[in-house]
Amino acid sequence: MSFINDSFMLKNETAKKLFEHVKDLPIIDYHCHIPPQMIAEDYMFSDAYELFLGGDHYKWRQMRSNGIDEEYITGGAEPFEKWLYFAKTMPRLIGNPIYHWTHLELKRYFDIDLILNEKNAKEIWDAVNEKLKTPEFSVKNIIRKSNVEVICTTDNPYDDLKYHKQLKGFETKVIPAFRPDLDGLKPDITERMDYFHENGCRLSDHAVDEINDEIIDHLAFLGEEYAKRGWVWQLHIGAMRNNNTKMYEKLGADTGFDSVNDFEIAKGISKLLDTLDKKDVLPKTILYCLNPKDNYVLGTMLGNFQKAPVRGKIQLGSGWWFNDNRDGMEAQLRAFANLGCLGNFIGMLTDSRSFVSYTRHEYFRRILCNLIGKWAEDGEYPMDLDALKQIAEDISYYNAKEYFDF
Amino acid sequence: MSFINDSFMLKNETAKKLFEHVKDLPIIDYHCHIPPQMIAEDYMFSDAYELFLGGDHYKWRQMRSNGIDEEYITGGAEPFEKWLYFAKTMPRLIGNPIYHWTHLELKRYFDIDLILNEKNAKEIWDAVNEKLKTPEFSVKNIIRKSNVEVICTTDNPYDDLKYHKQLKGFETKVIPAFRPDLDGLKPDITERMDYFHENGCRLSDHAVDEINDEIIDHLAFLGEEYAKRGWVWQLHIGAMRNNNTKMYEKLGADTGFDSVNDFEIAKGISKLLDTLDKKDVLPKTILYCLNPKDNYVLGTMLGNFQKAPVRGKIQLGSGWWFNDNRDGMEAQLRAFANLGCLGNFIGMLTDSRSFVSYTRHEYFRRILCNLIGKWAEDGEYPMDLDALKQIAEDISYYNAKEYFDF
Amino acid sequence: MSFINDSFMLKNETAKKLFEHVKDLPIIDYHCHIPPQMIAEDYMFSDAYELFLGGDHYKWRQMRSNGIDEEYITGGAEPFEKWLYFAKTMPRLIGNPIYHWTHLELKRYFDIDLILNEKNAKEIWDAVNEKLKTPEFSVKNIIRKSNVEVICTTDNPYDDLKYHKQLKGFETKVIPAFRPDLDGLKPDITERMDYFHENGCRLSDHAVDEINDEIIDHLAFLGEEYAKRGWVWQLHIGAMRNNNTKMYEKLGADTGFDSVNDFEIAKGISKLLDTLDKKDVLPKTILYCLNPKDNYVLGTMLGNFQKAPVRGKIQLGSGWWFNDNRDGMEAQLRAFANLGCLGNFIGMLTDSRSFVSYTRHEYFRRILCNLIGKWAEDGEYPMDLDALKQIAEDISYYNAKEYFDF
Repeated sequence: MSFINDSFMLKNETAKKLFEHVKDLPIIDYHCHIPPQMIAEDYMFSDAYELFLGGDHYKWRQMRSNGIDEEYITGGAEPFEKWLYFAKTMPRLIGNPIYHWTHLELKRYFDIDLILNEKNAKEIWDAVNEKLKTPEFSVKNIIRKSNVEVICTTDNPYDDLKYHKQLKGFETKVIPAFRPDLDGLKPDITERMDYFHENGCRLSDHAVDEINDEIIDHLAFLGEEYAKRGWVWQLHIGAMRNNNTKMYEKLGADTGFDSVNDFEIAKGISKLLDTLDKKDVLPKTILYCLNPKDNYVLGTMLGNFQKAPVRGKIQLGSGWWFNDNRDGMEAQLRAFANLGCLGNFIGMLTDSRSFVSYTRHEYFRRILCNLIGKWAEDGEYPMDLDALKQIAEDISYYNAKEYFDF
Repeated sequence: MSFINDSFMLKNETAKKLFEHVKDLPIIDYHCHIPPQMIAEDYMFSDAYELFLGGDHYKWRQMRSNGIDEEYITGGAEPFEKWLYFAKTMPRLIGNPIYHWTHLELKRYFDIDLILNEKNAKEIWDAVNEKLKTPEFSVKNIIRKSNVEVICTTDNPYDDLKYHKQLKGFETKVIPAFRPDLDGLKPDITERMDYFHENGCRLSDHAVDEINDEIIDHLAFLGEEYAKRGWVWQLHIGAMRNNNTKMYEKLGADTGFDSVNDFEIAKGISKLLDTLDKKDVLPKTILYCLNPKDNYVLGTMLGNFQKAPVRGKIQLGSGWWFNDNRDGMEAQLRAFANLGCLGNFIGMLTDSRSFVSYTRHEYFRRILCNLIGKWAEDGEYPMDLDALKQIAEDISYYNAKEYFDF
Repeated sequence: MSFINDSFMLKNETAKKLFEHVKDLPIIDYHCHIPPQMIAEDYMFSDAYELFLGGDHYKWRQMRSNGIDEEYITGGAEPFEKWLYFAKTMPRLIGNPIYHWTHLELKRYFDIDLILNEKNAKEIWDAVNEKLKTPEFSVKNIIRKSNVEVICTTDNPYDDLKYHKQLKGFETKVIPAFRPDLDGLKPDITERMDYFHENGCRLSDHAVDEINDEIIDHLAFLGEEYAKRGWVWQLHIGAMRNNNTKMYEKLGADTGFDSVNDFEIAKGISKLLDTLDKKDVLPKTILYCLNPKDNYVLGTMLGNFQKAPVRGKIQLGSGWWFNDNRDGMEAQLRAFANLGCLGNFIGMLTDSRSFVSYTRHEYFRRILCNLIGKWAEDGEYPMDLDALKQIAEDISYYNAKEYFDF
């Protein structure tokens, strides 16, 4: 039996039935980091290294953990050498999501059932590269094949959005998302919001790497502007970035040297949301926590600011970054369910820089179906397949469709 | 098969056997928020809304999460309309304890096996209301039916306790608990303790929403006075209240706008307990944490101050408020077991404003039996039914009976 | 069937197969607190109390939790009386690792299958004491029987290491570890490192009970010196010690009055490691967290500073102290796997003051095999027994052998 088989991550019969209903639903990928230019230009990848490892610092980190020299990760070594070292690392990554993601990607995009290791690295390299030469593997065709209805990229407010404009005829909506730096609000920032709005933008994104009164003021200003425009607001809370000075100087940001912070967030986030709510200008908000210790802080924060008529106006964001794995997703789903109304959850996003990462939606849907299927089989929810199916479908697709105004 | 059936939450055979031994044990509900006046006056509820939703902000929060207008939650809408919106919310609450509690309440008090939803909301409404008119459903009869041996209410130190006095002949002991505000200790506070003591009070309760030297001094003063009187001391640590200013101004406190805080507690709680222990005036103490991140901080704090001759003098309080669910209770039980002597745990309380919440004791007992039954079936504890039964019975009833001096 | 049987803690068939491969591997106990003098003098224990309870404050804590007077724990009572009170406590310790450890110790060292309780306490007492009189139960023979390849003790920098010198011919390498007090670095501290190095020392150990710039400077100085010598550096982060002033005055430190702290660690630990890495003098480092809330903070910190050519240069330490139980070990293994490369984990240590605590390595190996066996049976890792076996063997023994330069 293949490693990636129909039952992958589905450990009960109800889960298997539920997954049948959600597996072919379209994807609304409302937060990611792929470059719109590559879509607009319908980029072709040169080899397996570029596709799988080119910008994916999650994988680089694991190669470094395995004692591999930077030369063979981001350095000047030949692409196949890098691929080989990645393959050598793979068997040791037991329990790591990259083990699952990589094999999902090989299976879904290349129909490869092999378990990547040092011995078959060349065979897989050749098979992948062969396919990457065909038009079927242009960026647009990868996206088509992935059944993606909407992509929200992450953009600098001063981006001219020319690639988004070029992409207007493309079957998948490619929409910009507004990500202003916190420390550099310029006088024309609201004009930029208008410009983004005209170009389809309906959501923003902020990294909250620390929180204090000045940051709250900044964010409150922005939040109010988003509310005026009916945008959704994403707050990504709790990262600690660029910990390794030497590597930052060598490779720059977003290269795999970030980790989980542990500052207090409850009072600051409460103050921010209350400041806006008092003025009736709190937008729909998604709160993501990087430190799983904060699942209950944010999971209960939601309930303080929910408001009609939106179902689930304030959301607990899907397991983010270091939580984007089986345990992290389950912890987020359980916290959401214990503390709030899980049936209203808007579900998964890739948050990825990789064009084959849409399989993470499949991964999420499998974990979701497994969890609620188990609850039903355990008698913690009635064995009512229609009700369960609706919940699974809503969280996989329909809730996001209703929540966002794309 | 009914949703609430004999095996509900009991996923192994040993658990089912153990539950048979504890299901009919009396309830010692040593902490709740029900009004003694309603008992004394043997109140009759007018309808299902009042009984199930009247004062239960846990349920209000979930209705708000589902995008329901406040008019239909705490506002001026007709009671049945509110009930209907609650019913509409129900199917989406998969994984939420309210899903379980509500159906336990319908089953145990009204013998209703239906799964509440929009379609049967009227049928259930009528059936409940019909029964509520009968004497069987007066407050006292609900309590009798629930097999409650002791109820500890939560009272203002300046309460005259007249309802408690009126209740002296009632089969269930209704005992006041002393809950002073931290910021307003008056000169006669110890006289009020004496007055409460004369009226049966044997425990106090404090919200520790923040901790600093001034608060420690206040609490140390009170703790010493409790020790003198042989009282038990409850510290509820880590709530952040009234986050939503607008709703606070509209509805007041305890209406569903509180959440989990995340300040540091270890040093402060240690200092408080040590201050008292040094003077040999540390009362029996129950430490509750609202943030599950603190389970290990408090679960290890116990061991610093345990002292003969009391078995389990310092207790880790049962899963509290947002932790009062399957995962939260299991996390508390596991922390208690890993770090201390679970066999001495004094078990569950309702902490509730609802008269049908005694089913939460059943819910707890099922989760407890399930956990220890699983350990035995997994070979992590010997399959010695007598030993297991004693543990289950002790935690369900006998430990609390021995610990408190009611 | 015996409580401690072949399947103990092994709940799936794959786990049982894997455990067969690791159960007889030697033990590298790279961190413990046993006195080298007792080994050098080949100490004989006088009775079961001395062997099992003599210095083990983990057990004392549980006896205190059970309301036993200090007289029968560390006081002047007869050894058998203390043993009897320990036996009385045992049945209530359901879910506690001491329940498992004690029975593992009785089984492995004394071939006793009884479940310790009040009734058989005398029978077991006699059987254990009988054997303790025989040469087979001298300290050296206990160590031989336990298949220990290396022991690293924990030593004061000003220790003369005479017992380590005496032990040079012993089959088990007994190596000192360097544990300087943070607040008292003396001018000759590097000479002491040299002296330790000459006597086989290859690792150091630090308690990080708080973190601030002064402590970071101290530690950075020491870390650089360790790096020069090729030592491994252990940081034990997050304890709060000697909480009970009265008992501290009576019994001193390390007597069971410590607990879990909750201060912020992310920024401080990051700064410390970066300070050294910038200068290329970051030694191999093991980060242990006492508060499980920090598993994700430290588990992601590793990735910031991994560096070729070492596989897993920065390690997340095994479940430590209050986490040294089934749940704590699983949480550590899961965090390591989700966030890093579990295949490179260097595994278990006893951290113990007891000579029969080597069974904790068995306990760890069982929990490890159970976890990875479950993943394979659940289809989360291929059912490739060779690959699984290598991972289990590496984590149980070979990774530590390669990582340390003993």
